[in-house]
Amino acid sequence: MIKTDILIIGAGPTGLFAVFEAGLLQLKCHLIDALPQPGGQCSEIYPKKPIYDIPGYPEVLAGELVDNLMEQIKPFQPGFTLGERAETIEKQEDGSFVVTTNKGTQHQAPVVAIAGGLGSFEPRKPLLENLSKYEDNGVAYMIKEPEIYRNKKVLIAGGGDSALDWSIFLADVANEVTLVHRRNEFRGALDSVEKVQQLKNEGKINLITPAEVVALHGANQLEKVTVKNTDTDQDIDVEVDSFIPLFGLSPKLGPIANWGLEIEKNAIKVDNTLDYQTNVPGIYAIGDVNTYPGKLKLILCGFHEATLMCQSAYQRIHPDKKYVMKYTTVGGVTGFDGSKKEAPKAVVKAID
Amino acid sequence: MIKTDILIIGAGPTGLFAVFEAGLLQLKCHLIDALPQPGGQCSEIYPKKPIYDIPGYPEVLAGELVDNLMEQIKPFQPGFTLGERAETIEKQEDGSFVVTTNKGTQHQAPVVAIAGGLGSFEPRKPLLENLSKYEDNGVAYMIKEPEIYRNKKVLIAGGGDSALDWSIFLADVANEVTLVHRRNEFRGALDSVEKVQQLKNEGKINLITPAEVVALHGANQLEKVTVKNTDTDQDIDVEVDSFIPLFGLSPKLGPIANWGLEIEKNAIKVDNTLDYQTNVPGIYAIGDVNTYPGKLKLILCGFHEATLMCQSAYQRIHPDKKYVMKYTTVGGVTGFDGSKKEAPKAVVKAID
Ligand SMILES: Cc1cc2nc3c(=O)[nH]c(=O)nc-3n(C[C@H](O)[C@H](O)[C@H](O)COP(=O)(O)OP(=O)(O)OC[C@H]3O[C@@H](n4cnc5c(N)ncnc54)[C@H](O)[C@@H]3O)c2cc1C
Ligand SMILES: Cc1cc2nc3c(=O)[nH]c(=O)nc-3n(C[C@H](O)[C@H](O)[C@H](O)COP(=O)(O)OP(=O)(O)OC[C@H]3O[C@@H](n4cnc5c(N)ncnc54)[C@H](O)[C@@H]3O)c2cc1C
Repeated sequence: MIKTDILIIGAGPTGLFAVFEAGLLQLKCHLIDALPQPGGQCSEIYPKKPIYDIPGYPEVLAGELVDNLMEQIKPFQPGFTLGERAETIEKQEDGSFVVTTNKGTQHQAPVVAIAGGLGSFEPRKPLLENLSKYEDNGVAYMIKEPEIYRNKKVLIAGGGDSALDWSIFLADVANEVTLVHRRNEFRGALDSVEKVQQLKNEGKINLITPAEVVALHGANQLEKVTVKNTDTDQDIDVEVDSFIPLFGLSPKLGPIANWGLEIEKNAIKVDNTLDYQTNVPGIYAIGDVNTYPGKLKLILCGFHEATLMCQSAYQRIHPDKKYVMKYTTVGGVTGFDGSKKEAPKAVVKAID
Repeated sequence: MIKTDILIIGAGPTGLFAVFEAGLLQLKCHLIDALPQPGGQCSEIYPKKPIYDIPGYPEVLAGELVDNLMEQIKPFQPGFTLGERAETIEKQEDGSFVVTTNKGTQHQAPVVAIAGGLGSFEPRKPLLENLSKYEDNGVAYMIKEPEIYRNKKVLIAGGGDSALDWSIFLADVANEVTLVHRRNEFRGALDSVEKVQQLKNEGKINLITPAEVVALHGANQLEKVTVKNTDTDQDIDVEVDSFIPLFGLSPKLGPIANWGLEIEKNAIKVDNTLDYQTNVPGIYAIGDVNTYPGKLKLILCGFHEATLMCQSAYQRIHPDKKYVMKYTTVGGVTGFDGSKKEAPKAVVKAID
């Protein structure tokens, strides 16, 4: 059982910044995310695109923003359960909550902050008869640890940035990379498309287009896939260890919708007059996942909501203590790792 | 009469960022500030100190944050009335407001956003009998245009960063710089103190400590000041064109307190359930100047409040139009100066 002060569901920009604000209050956080990496939409959908409305950043790449947030929260040593979906929540007798993921990992905390964005990112799957049989036995929808593909035979399907970028990356790691797409045209950053063209020319990527995977074979473990060239209608068998369809991840509010929270327009209703708490005391919802009159699904709004949520969480966790806010400039930042950041002090010095 | 869409009182971080959010909605802004430079507390009190809780910035100097905000809002060409205090507000028959400063400058807008922070920064003045006679005739409490001191004789009083930094700056501009402080010890950044020591040694700054200015002389214009050395009790007369006491600026809510707005704890009560509007429709209060249940006087909260305020202001200004929000990443940023920022588009390209 993982125990923490604030359990945060969703490691998008809102959940990440909540770690910082909680840390200033000496509260520890643990984050659960269905994705293999932190950053939410910013990392999954548009890491290389610029955002122009982060206050104080005339321009910042979404991926850079996530890197900066990760750097900012480092002193507060958050825990992460990545690649798992928060599935159920149960209130304990002592008032705390236990959240269990689809893989069975259990987390306990007196406060739960749902920062689930548009929902847990779930892969779009190809329609193949015996697909589920091979899930985790050769079929994967996202790449968590690229090293497991070293010296393996990998077939990637898809025509967007993920398919292009992972083909490029794995061309150096895997023994064989085959890229299958139902069109001849790929849609992505120009340099990625050009790089795949080059790797194909060098024989480092085996390209099959326009084509689709139509069948999976293997006793228990995936051994072979059948690829149909849709121009010629010809079937080709490719021996593979792994088949990775990268057809995009789409967010689904999913299990959270059944947690007994008030839902409106596919989002969780919160009390915006005070602390972004849901109708269940101790459970908050911040960032894109919540709704209230005038709600804007913007990153900067999630930052504010996370900050006010932490103040309320503090009072819930420490009902007897009174927190006196200190500016970071004045009080500095004291990490759980013993680190201390502080402004250089003014000197008092005679001039003679 | 200066006319604009949103008249912002206070050019601190909150007021500045409001310009950006308004610009995205194609609304023009004009800012009034009592200080000679934008940035509010960040510029006036701690420009060289690091802030650690700006989301996405593990560390940023307060002055850098202001520079970045100024850069971010540049495409939206805000107007500025600096060094003047907003004094009165009058509602017009057409529902708009006219705001007049202490210098008589008039501004008209359908929406007024008060981003006045802790109030208008007013100088602490020395207790000298005929001080007011020389105000604007040789006595100044802040330096707006350093060039007016070129080849003049200047006497600065004070022992903090402002007194040190302006003495250093004017040593290169003015004909004579005298620095008077009631102690031998100065309180400021180490390098500033050391630089003043060096300039004193080189004879470029005339230092008198521990001492006080005790009398001002001159027919209409300031011509001479009497400085008392408090160690020896000796009086010294110094011929000067300007006397600049830099004893710090302290914020006072001031005239805004009499605008008929609901005030609580020296701040303006707003409706935090929707749009940070005051009890007077069309007048909003954002940032440190407002109060509501759970209010935190933090820069990041001002950013959020400014953003929601702009949405409401848009509806007030364009009651018939419906604004459809577009992410900056998707829609780009179109400046009033014809500039356009946008994300590089994905290509659709065949690989053969
Ligand atoms: C193309 C694009 C451009 C954008 N441009 C801008 C812009 O310019 N400015 C701006 O402010 N915003 C922009 N946005 C919106 C911005 O990305 C979101 O507002 C922001 O990501 C919301 O952050 P969040 O942390 O609340 O949620 P998210 O970023 O959505 O993160 C939520 C995370 O929670 C996880 N999660 C949800 N449920 C579960 C569960 N049950 N178990 C485990 N994990 C779960 C998800 O997997 C996800 O990683 C843009 C969005 C897109 C798609
Ligand atoms: C030493 C110090 C350290 C701080 N550290 C942090 C930190 O680490 N993190 C953080 O988030 N915050 C910090 N703060 C607080 C932060 O600076 C404020 O929250 C922020 O400046 C508020 O911005 P604002 O734009 O609302 O108001 P302000 O910055 O106060 O600006 C308001 C402006 O309005 C002007 N004004 C007011 N009334 C009038 C009028 N009638 N006419 C004309 N002009 C007027 C004032 O002159 C002023 O320039 C710190 C503050 C101090 C003093």
